[in-house]
Amino acid sequence: MDHLHQTFSVRFTYSVYFTEQLFDSTNSLLADFFSQQATAETRKKLLVVIDSGVVSTHPNLPATITSYFSQHADSVELVTDFLILPGGEIAKNDPDSVEKIVDAVDRHGIDRHSYVAAIGGGSVLDLVGYAAAISHRGIRHIRIPTTVLSQNDSGVGVKNGVNYKGKKNFLGTFVPPVAVFNDSQFLTTLDERDWRAGVSEAVKVALIKDKAFFEWIEQNAEALAARDMTAMQYLVHRCADMHLQHIAGGDPFEMGSSRPLDFGHWSAHKLEQLTNFEIRHGEAVAIGIAMDSLYSQQLGWLSETDTNRILTTLRTLGFVLYQPMLDADNSAGVLKGLSEFREHLGGQLTIMLLKDLGRGVEVHEMDADRIRQAIATLREQESLTLQPALSGQ
Amino acid sequence: MDHLHQTFSVRFTYSVYFTEQLFDSTNSLLADFFSQQATAETRKKLLVVIDSGVVSTHPNLPATITSYFSQHADSVELVTDFLILPGGEIAKNDPDSVEKIVDAVDRHGIDRHSYVAAIGGGSVLDLVGYAAAISHRGIRHIRIPTTVLSQNDSGVGVKNGVNYKGKKNFLGTFVPPVAVFNDSQFLTTLDERDWRAGVSEAVKVALIKDKAFFEWIEQNAEALAARDMTAMQYLVHRCADMHLQHIAGGDPFEMGSSRPLDFGHWSAHKLEQLTNFEIRHGEAVAIGIAMDSLYSQQLGWLSETDTNRILTTLRTLGFVLYQPMLDADNSAGVLKGLSEFREHLGGQLTIMLLKDLGRGVEVHEMDADRIRQAIATLREQESLTLQPALSGQ
Repeated sequence: MDHLHQTFSVRFTYSVYFTEQLFDSTNSLLADFFSQQATAETRKKLLVVIDSGVVSTHPNLPATITSYFSQHADSVELVTDFLILPGGEIAKNDPDSVEKIVDAVDRHGIDRHSYVAAIGGGSVLDLVGYAAAISHRGIRHIRIPTTVLSQNDSGVGVKNGVNYKGKKNFLGTFVPPVAVFNDSQFLTTLDERDWRAGVSEAVKVALIKDKAFFEWIEQNAEALAARDMTAMQYLVHRCADMHLQHIAGGDPFEMGSSRPLDFGHWSAHKLEQLTNFEIRHGEAVAIGIAMDSLYSQQLGWLSETDTNRILTTLRTLGFVLYQPMLDADNSAGVLKGLSEFREHLGGQLTIMLLKDLGRGVEVHEMDADRIRQAIATLREQESLTLQPALSGQ
Repeated sequence: MDHLHQTFSVRFTYSVYFTEQLFDSTNSLLADFFSQQATAETRKKLLVVIDSGVVSTHPNLPATITSYFSQHADSVELVTDFLILPGGEIAKNDPDSVEKIVDAVDRHGIDRHSYVAAIGGGSVLDLVGYAAAISHRGIRHIRIPTTVLSQNDSGVGVKNGVNYKGKKNFLGTFVPPVAVFNDSQFLTTLDERDWRAGVSEAVKVALIKDKAFFEWIEQNAEALAARDMTAMQYLVHRCADMHLQHIAGGDPFEMGSSRPLDFGHWSAHKLEQLTNFEIRHGEAVAIGIAMDSLYSQQLGWLSETDTNRILTTLRTLGFVLYQPMLDADNSAGVLKGLSEFREHLGGQLTIMLLKDLGRGVEVHEMDADRIRQAIATLREQESLTLQPALSGQ
């Protein structure tokens, strides 16, 4: 058989920086990054896309960024025409969002050696990462995540994506950023729900990989709920580190049958959709973790004590572990999430469950009755939690 | 400075197969490929997109493919609802083309472990490769190029792309195919222009890398013009091999300042656009090669003898080396292609010229007067070539 065989490897490298007040004129981190990347022959530009939610809580941000680069003007050429886009899952449904970014790339002459930076939550990072990945076959992309969830999870990873005709992340690519800047100052202005929502990804990764980290979260759950920044900085750093290790140690672009660092996610994706994204990703993941922990207990894999430690930790963090749409038990309900998850993975269903705190194991089928039992337990516990409050009125 | 550093490599591997009558029931090459890729846990599907131009000359192709996979049904599950799309550069301007492919991926449940095969010329391969790259963050993509140009050049490479608001390949990615099948039988039905057009990429790569290959083309130019299939098969194989070697030996995804295997292309891209793609890519490249060879001669780098060998070889192959739009010498003319090429490369202009047959060298500027002189020479030579024919009427 006459053929030519081609093999090559492509090396990807990037850093995740932890800082405070990234755009303070005395913080040279970002300017230093651009200076180190500079080359004699080309003048590189920087296009900045900002989440409108971030601009609402930080109205001076565009001016601050402009001021920063006027003081560090030799590092990169800032495009002062900022692109401000709405965030949230709904924004990923709008085809115009990507087009606006691509048009800005075109209008400002951003080439393959220039940069597009995204400042915002996971949705804006996903949108901008995708637009950067497809423009000129890939523009250098910088992520400046502003939420707990994006700083410790999606923002440090290699995926991007947008929804297509309502299908979550139907369009997307695997392209690493050239750098990630995690500025903890952005976390101080998050509302309660967004502060909390990101913590569930830390619980998830701890439960499947690192018992000691779970116990740290358990011990610090009250501090985290009380918005202790030192605790949150540790959590974000540890979680980002584990996420990076998982990517590098595995199959970064998921070309084989390897799967992402998932636990409690199959139902979470569906629950988000069923509630029309009124429930946030992290809130849905907390419920998904609770469900799959109870399922693991039913299998005899997790003790009642350990299961309760998980549920108590999640509740101490402030999560509500039941949502009425869980009981939409028909062909369009949460159970349908199982078959959709199978399709998303491509072929075989693979779900992570727990054999112990810190020890995830994969299974290839789940029993609908056991899932319903886990949901029933959560419904019952939640009504008991609420009862005293109601009777006390 | 607090940071985490991430580094990983991703390995890409694929084969380029040379065959005849790929879909003949007795040719097991394709079925064997799918069987080797099969895994126990998943049933993989195959969606086939065909260039409408190919269907015109091979009206039985869909039926032949259906018949092939009914006889090799255990290798893969064929989606018998073929997607037939127009080819040519114009098709890459139409945003609906990508949407049609993505919708078919969705409709037929093609997941990341399934395949999308494209049968056609370079434009359809580019379109399908792009749609496959962005669907589900990348579906396995198979190329079955049907033109000389796509079999020896673009079809074996790692790029895809579509035009955006008239800008050539403004959207695209670097994603290798999982396999390429070059079926020489498709070449027999090409019209004269498409048969010839692909040869100019072989002349290009020979001139900058391999004098012996150029001399082979020179000696076989009449045979190639007379559609000698043995000569063409050798040319396609040698050219594909050099193209693969260039990719693997360099910077496959062009992340640094490395550039593609280009010569004679800066003007060719512009000339295609100026003629509204009436001139084909390979025809424009032949003119571009002639121009930049004459330019190299003006610099004293290439002898008059060698320059004439190049021009004579191109003319023996059947190329016309002048096009009136070359003289649209204003801000919208071919010279504008220089600045657009600079922008496309990102930053510094880099143009390949010739120091000798088989030896390309890069320069970072070109002189407008010398370019005009090269154009004038081509105009004059072409009028001399045409004169006897006209006076003989």
